[in-house]
Formats: sequence, C-alpha cells, structure tokens
Amino acid sequence: MFPDAEYAARLRAVRGRMAEQGLGALLVTDPANLFYLTGYDAWSFYTPQLLFVPAEGELLLFLREMDANGAFRTARLDPGQIVGYPERYVHRPHLHPFDWVAFALRRRGRVAPAARGCVGLEMDSHFFSPKGYRSLVNALPEWTLVDAFDLVNWVRAVKSPAEIQYLRTAARVTTAAMQAAIDTIEPGVPQHLVAAQVARAQVEGVDDAWGDFPAMVPMLPTGASADTPHLTWSDRVLREGDAVVVELAGVHRRYHVPLARTVMLGPPTAELGLLEEAVASGLEAVLDVTAAGVPVRELASTWNWALAEFGLEKPSRLGYSVGIGYPPDWGERTISIRSEDESVLAENMTFHLICGMWMTGYGYEVSESIRITATGTEALTSFPRALIRK
Amino acid sequence: MFPDAEYAARLRAVRGRMAEQGLGALLVTDPANLFYLTGYDAWSFYTPQLLFVPAEGELLLFLREMDANGAFRTARLDPGQIVGYPERYVHRPHLHPFDWVAFALRRRGRVAPAARGCVGLEMDSHFFSPKGYRSLVNALPEWTLVDAFDLVNWVRAVKSPAEIQYLRTAARVTTAAMQAAIDTIEPGVPQHLVAAQVARAQVEGVDDAWGDFPAMVPMLPTGASADTPHLTWSDRVLREGDAVVVELAGVHRRYHVPLARTVMLGPPTAELGLLEEAVASGLEAVLDVTAAGVPVRELASTWNWALAEFGLEKPSRLGYSVGIGYPPDWGERTISIRSEDESVLAENMTFHLICGMWMTGYGYEVSESIRITATGTEALTSFPRALIRK
Repeated sequence: MFPDAEYAARLRAVRGRMAEQGLGALLVTDPANLFYLTGYDAWSFYTPQLLFVPAEGELLLFLREMDANGAFRTARLDPGQIVGYPERYVHRPHLHPFDWVAFALRRRGRVAPAARGCVGLEMDSHFFSPKGYRSLVNALPEWTLVDAFDLVNWVRAVKSPAEIQYLRTAARVTTAAMQAAIDTIEPGVPQHLVAAQVARAQVEGVDDAWGDFPAMVPMLPTGASADTPHLTWSDRVLREGDAVVVELAGVHRRYHVPLARTVMLGPPTAELGLLEEAVASGLEAVLDVTAAGVPVRELASTWNWALAEFGLEKPSRLGYSVGIGYPPDWGERTISIRSEDESVLAENMTFHLICGMWMTGYGYEVSESIRITATGTEALTSFPRALIRK
Repeated sequence: MFPDAEYAARLRAVRGRMAEQGLGALLVTDPANLFYLTGYDAWSFYTPQLLFVPAEGELLLFLREMDANGAFRTARLDPGQIVGYPERYVHRPHLHPFDWVAFALRRRGRVAPAARGCVGLEMDSHFFSPKGYRSLVNALPEWTLVDAFDLVNWVRAVKSPAEIQYLRTAARVTTAAMQAAIDTIEPGVPQHLVAAQVARAQVEGVDDAWGDFPAMVPMLPTGASADTPHLTWSDRVLREGDAVVVELAGVHRRYHVPLARTVMLGPPTAELGLLEEAVASGLEAVLDVTAAGVPVRELASTWNWALAEFGLEKPSRLGYSVGIGYPPDWGERTISIRSEDESVLAENMTFHLICGMWMTGYGYEVSESIRITATGTEALTSFPRALIRK
C-alpha cells in the first residue's frame, strides 16, 4: 500500500522513541498501530493479536491461526514473521493466547535480548485485556514491563504526503456520505432509513475513492436526545421541528475524515440559533489562530473565550488527532484540543475539530477535519458550515 | 425494551452465580453485558465504562460525563444510579477514569460491603484495559480481585421468549441482507459495491424489522483470498470463476443472527464441489443429533467424522453461542462447538454453526443460526444451503 521506504521510516521513528524510553522491545496490540507498522488489515482484532517490535532484529506478528494463514495478503512481512497460535487457545477459561506467544518468543530466543531494556506495553489499548497482560507478566518474569504511553500513536500524529493523499481521498467519501444524509433527512422518515443511506454511501464512495468501513457507525442524535452524542439510530420517525445531528466519517484504506453537521427540519428555536452563531464564531476564531508552531492550548483558550462571549461553555475537548482508525474509535488517542494538553502543532498533523454542544434537551454539532500547514490549515472537506435548514 | 420483570430475572440469575463464586461485587465492562443487565445502549464503549453490581443494593453505572447525561434514555436505571466521570480523565497519560470511579465508590460507602467477598472482574473483556485493571488494583487495596470468567455471558446463553422474538426479527434482516449480496454479486462488480448494498440492507431491514448496526462488517472473502476468513472488502473486481464467500448478520435491537453462504460465478472447481458436498453432509449430520440435553462435544465429533469421510478436517471450532453483540464480535464467548467444550445443550440456547473451510488458495462457507429446542433445532433463517451458482 505504501512503499517499503515509508514502512522503514515508520519503524525507524518508533525505534527512535523506544531508545529514548529505554525499551528493549515494544509489544503492539492496537490494530491501528499494527496496520501502521506492517499494513496488516483484517477484522481479526476480536481475538488477541500482538506485534513484537524488538529494538533490533526482525518483527514478529502473532495472530490466531486462521488469520495468520492469510495475513501475508495485507501485511508487509515475510511469511516466517507471521506466526499463528493454535485455535485451542481461543476463548478458553484458563488459557490465553499470550501464554503461547510468550513460549514462542522464548523458543525463538527473543526473550533474553529484549530484557536488556524494559519492554513497553500499550497498557490502555482496546483489545489488550488484563488477562492477556497477566499472562505476559507470569510467563516472562525476566521482563520489566512498562507502559509505553501510546508510543506508536504519537509517531502517527504527523502524516506523510502519501497519507495526506489517502485522507483527501477519504474526504470525498465523507462528502458523499454527508450529502446522502442531508438528502434523506425529511419529516416522516425514520432514522434507520437515513442511516442506511449513509452506510451505503460510506462504502460505495465516489469513483476511485472507494469506501472502507468506518470505525464508528453514523450518529444521528435527534431532537431532545441530541443532548448526548453517542446514541445510535432506531426507527424513530423524524418530525417537523427536529434538529438532527449527523456525525460520520468517510474512510479510504483505513484513513478517516470525520464530519458533523446539524440539519433543522423547520425553523430553529432561539436557543439553537444562538448555538449556531456561537459555534460559527468560535470555530472561525480557532481556525484563524491555528498553524504549525502554535500550542494546542491556545486553540482551546481561543475557543473558550469565543464561547464565553455568548455565555456558553463546552466541558469536553474541542477536537483530537485523527487518521487511521479501527472500531470502536477513529481518534488517535494522543493530542486532544483542550487546555490541559501540552502539545504544539506541527505541519501535517490532522485533527477533527468537533464543536459539539450537548445541552439539556437539545444539541448542536458542526465539525471540520483539518490538516495543519506551515501558515494555517487545509480543510479536508468543503461543506458549508451553517445549520442546514430543510 | 424488555419488561422490568425480565431485567429483574437477569439480575437474580447473575447474583445467584455471584453467590456461588463468593463474590461481594461484580464489575461489568463488556458493553453486551451492560446492555443485558440495564438496557444501556450507545456507541460510548471506546471510553471506559463500568457497571458496579453489588451482591445486594443498587447498581451503579459509571460513564464518561457526556454519555452519562443521556444514558437514562436507554438504561433502565434511576438517574441517581448513572454517574459521569469528568472529561479530564479521558485519554490522559497518568490518569485513568477508574481512578475516579474507585474514589466515587469509596465516597458512596460501597467499597467495604463489597470487600466481604471477592470482587469479580471481566478479565478478558474488550474495552477493559490493563491500565484500568491496575488503576482498580491500586485504588482498592481492600478488594480481592478475581476473574469472574464471563459470568454474565454465561447467564446470557439461554434466551427468554422475548429475546427469541428479537432474534426472529433479526433473522428477517439477515435474509434481506443476504439477498442483497446475492443480487449484487456479478462478474465485473467491485467488492465494495456489494458491501455497500449489504450495509444498506442491514440497516434498512424489512418493514418493522428495522436493522441495528452489526458487530462485524460484512465479510466477502473472494477467490484465492477466501483461504482466510477476516479480510475486509476493497475495490477488487469480481471475476468469472470467483467463489465469493458472504458472511454477515442481521441485527435487531442488538440481537444478531449471522449467516454465511458462498456464491460461485461460473462453474465450481472439483475441490469446491467436494467442499460443498462434505459441508452439506456434515451440517445435516450435526443438525440431526442436535437437541437439548446433548453434549456440545457430540456435535463436534459428529462433524469431524462426517468431514473425515471426505478426507477433510477443520481445525477451528464449528460454532459458538450468539445473541447480543457489540463491535468487534457477535459471539458470546461462552460455548464453542468443539471437542474441548464441556457444555451440554439446553433449550433456547442459540448458536451460529459456521462451516467455514479455509483451504490453501480457496475457501467455502455455509452457516446456520439455530435455536435449540427440546427435540431438535429451529433454524432462524431458511436460506437454501447449497453453493449459490450465478
């Protein structure tokens, strides 16, 4: 998918950070990080997977046997680097696949060299369970296991030119999917029929911009229940007077470009009009100050001051780093746009700025996915930012 | 969604098992188990969630603040039982939301009573990370934490009459989605356009059988790459001579009915013809012996003997318990149809029998979702079981 040189550069960057953290090896379990480092891509992450990244020497990818058999079709690894654990370790009360993996590493002579440093774990990764963790603790007593604090995720924060092209392609899928939502939202239409058209458009894509599966299903918070962002659809029928929030992502080869808009069926209430104005003003102010070299907390404070002028505040973060995603999340879990974040923006970082206002009994969302440039930002989509009146 | 009496019965069954295992409390983190016990349903499981189930006294559901605000819309809990943790605990390197949750439990006086027994954890649950586990270990030293071994999952194994109705409704979605796949699969059509129609049909559903989001995206292993089951689609164009495996689920209100079929574009090879015959014979033999009271291992051995007559074997399990699902898996993680499983079938258990044969350079799948009855089985869908020739 990417040229070999790009994978080599990614691994070099990861090993550079490993050296800084004194790691003799890193155990990668996050499917997005597996994909980033090896290209491995399959819906196999519901059983344990582990990429062994030693400070030097060859990587080893451990997967369930049935997945290991075909992993060479997506992973840029030699077949000898892909190791299947036996089926009898799957979903068994007193076994865990990592018992077997630990033994396999030992048999291959990879345990002792790794023990020359600490061994980093993705301690907060989805799909790395406490059972798997304890299995490693018990089976590898010579290892000093430490939290690697999303080491690979941080390498992912700055995108390469090739990755940016994928994001631009994904953005075309995003636009088509948002248009499908807006076209379908009408009084009398049940939510699930809107979601069905969005789901179709997300996978269909546009011309060569074919759609990959999104890490989150489309969200359609509607009317009073738009006071909370993550309720999924039902057969609830849209009515005149409903504000329907649409949050979705277009995806191309695992790269996500999220987008949110709010569609108003009928005239908006005064409260919603106020939110529209406040959010538009806040988002514009934030985009005005955003550029490489700017501290993230400056974006947060710009946003907070802009909202304060309208007597409003938003307790949740304004946005987060975005790129590769696997269910259940398309965020990269590194930089969050909030005052506690110490990061400084760099060129070719990409963010989803999500101005989500979840009030009591109503809500409003507008968002932009952006790339940081030397002097400002590139918006990845170009959807009008206003409340959409139908 | 279900009457109060049904939720009460579920909780009683869970507490019965807790008493047997000597648990003073159980901490539930699996979104399917949260849904089962409280009805709480949202795409919020990518940040930590925890249901505190004490041996006696009221349940407490801990969620991220923005999700807690609207959780009463789906959870059958009093607002006072739903507690939001502050946004500043989300994705922070040296904090975890369970630090806050532990403190909140202590402040509410719930720690000491729970310590009268062990406290059960879902040690292998997706979305319960080692970081969250260590946070509980450190903050609650008076608790003896033990693996609860999928306690709630085991209660879920036998379905109530109301759950079976949901499954029958989901089966109508399954049938529509499979038909959409078969209608779209043609030489010259790229995989993603097939997936798009399946995704649409899965959400659209049929009449009042509206479609909920599936825990796994549709799988379309095609041609040579059908030797591995979990590769997702791309823009690869289907060709005359391709065998296209379709594995998908119809879903209604989180209840899943999976189904797999194989579509042949053109005449099948002799190897594929052999697989078709072997699998048909094996599946029929298995269904013939399946009924309440039969040990699971008898199904496995029947299947293995039937395959052996064709000189074939299948190293992976033949099936698994199915029902409520959240990404990334619709299996219940309890009973697997394989010789190592000690379970005995009971009436109203439901299974996905997946006869997936992943060979070298080709593959074949046929499956059935079934309910166990006193005297045999009820097939939840009625799709012809043969290789579909187009």
